[in-house]
Amino acid sequence: MDISWTLIQKQRLHELNANETQQGMCFESQEDRNRAFQELEHQLVVKGKLRLQELREIKKRPSLCILEQQLVEALTQKGFVQVVTPTIISKGSLAKMSVSNEHPLFSQVFWLDNKRCLRPMLAPNLYTLWKDLLRLWEKPIRIFEIGTCYRKESQGALHLNEFTMLNLTELGLPEDQRQQRLEELATLVMDTVGITDYQLEMTNSVVYGDALDVVKGIELGSSAMGPHFLDDQWGIIDPWVGIGFGLERLLMIKEETQNVQSVGRSLSYLDGVRLNI
Amino acid sequence: MDISWTLIQKQRLHELNANETQQGMCFESQEDRNRAFQELEHQLVVKGKLRLQELREIKKRPSLCILEQQLVEALTQKGFVQVVTPTIISKGSLAKMSVSNEHPLFSQVFWLDNKRCLRPMLAPNLYTLWKDLLRLWEKPIRIFEIGTCYRKESQGALHLNEFTMLNLTELGLPEDQRQQRLEELATLVMDTVGITDYQLEMTNSVVYGDALDVVKGIELGSSAMGPHFLDDQWGIIDPWVGIGFGLERLLMIKEETQNVQSVGRSLSYLDGVRLNI
Repeated sequence: MDISWTLIQKQRLHELNANETQQGMCFESQEDRNRAFQELEHQLVVKGKLRLQELREIKKRPSLCILEQQLVEALTQKGFVQVVTPTIISKGSLAKMSVSNEHPLFSQVFWLDNKRCLRPMLAPNLYTLWKDLLRLWEKPIRIFEIGTCYRKESQGALHLNEFTMLNLTELGLPEDQRQQRLEELATLVMDTVGITDYQLEMTNSVVYGDALDVVKGIELGSSAMGPHFLDDQWGIIDPWVGIGFGLERLLMIKEETQNVQSVGRSLSYLDGVRLNI
Repeated sequence: MDISWTLIQKQRLHELNANETQQGMCFESQEDRNRAFQELEHQLVVKGKLRLQELREIKKRPSLCILEQQLVEALTQKGFVQVVTPTIISKGSLAKMSVSNEHPLFSQVFWLDNKRCLRPMLAPNLYTLWKDLLRLWEKPIRIFEIGTCYRKESQGALHLNEFTMLNLTELGLPEDQRQQRLEELATLVMDTVGITDYQLEMTNSVVYGDALDVVKGIELGSSAMGPHFLDDQWGIIDPWVGIGFGLERLLMIKEETQNVQSVGRSLSYLDGVRLNI
């Protein structure tokens, strides 16, 4: 029982969204293994075709879009206002996030020219809006954005060059309520997605300093609070909390897939299903 | 009555979404004009603040997001399936759209490196999916995407560097029904947006050859049909129709604003309202 899948078989099973047990199977002989592969591939192809049929006839929308809409509904019901900001941002606003040459994130930024890049995060745009909204609205100011962010990451099982971020912020709440509020907001998002048994962990983020992470096996969300050392740059003095989630990672855990590519923006997958079947 | 707004006044009125009549006003004297400017600016600022208050307390979402959701609902109800594809595309797929060095669109493309760019249109990704879906689904294949596209255009009153495109396609319909189908689809979209009194005009597109445009003062949408000279590149032989709309332009006409920036992704505007008020 020590013969496992070949590399090519393993790759194909990953593409077809085989689960962890299936990907870890072992066999007595190569013959057994190859027979098992053919059967399993066939099963997964049939399952994929059924799922595409369900998309066509019932769902009509990929899970990524459905999840986005569910989050919008849950957040607007709780008094948060949705914003839509540019995906092309200035080098200056990145620098105000302390993301400049020496910073670990800097090398992951996609540049369009020497002044503009694709946003690696939503925070700089939300900081910009905060400053104006503080003049126009009473506190607390509750805004969120759901949109594409970009990072040059090794295209591993957990990373995507373009991914969908939710960033949810509340500005101008009492300082002693921040921790509790973050936990409430994390719970609201996780309940909306339908993920249970997650942990809230204290960590140290490269951008935000101390942060509270939402974890279930992998990092699903990361939060921060202010007063914060970046606030000065943006002229913000009120206390705040913010929490960000990668929607593709949330889907990965919710739909129990090993393959983050399959649920994100793609030409090889449609709604979790590999198209070369 | 031959004294009009100063350039600075004109610019400010444009920012504040003054209507055409207001922007075209003339006066007997500079004194009259400047008094009128102060009054009008004040009115528009008050109106903007009310609109932001309405966003916060009632709408909760910018019109751009609401329109997107209305279109998704209308299209999925009519049997169209939503897809989400990468905004970073290859030079090769652009070339397959015949967008290469000599092409008018080529100079408007944002490049990330010598192989990858930001999509200036949704069509190449939809062509790619068609090819796989033809193997997996019965005809007609009805898919659409709503997503950000990018073009380096002079940031004029009608153009945005990043804008939101809807592209709606039907592949594998009877050839003699294409024209009628395009008109039905244009009507479906315009009814959903709530725009009346538009025209359907035959034009010649730089990318698609002969096309049917949807026009109300400005070009709102543009359609094409196949068999088409680009189909060969993508291995497509079935007849098709496709129609694309810029969501910000649709909103501009629907909300009767002169200012396309104000309804798009922005840090200066929130849902049509200038934030420096």
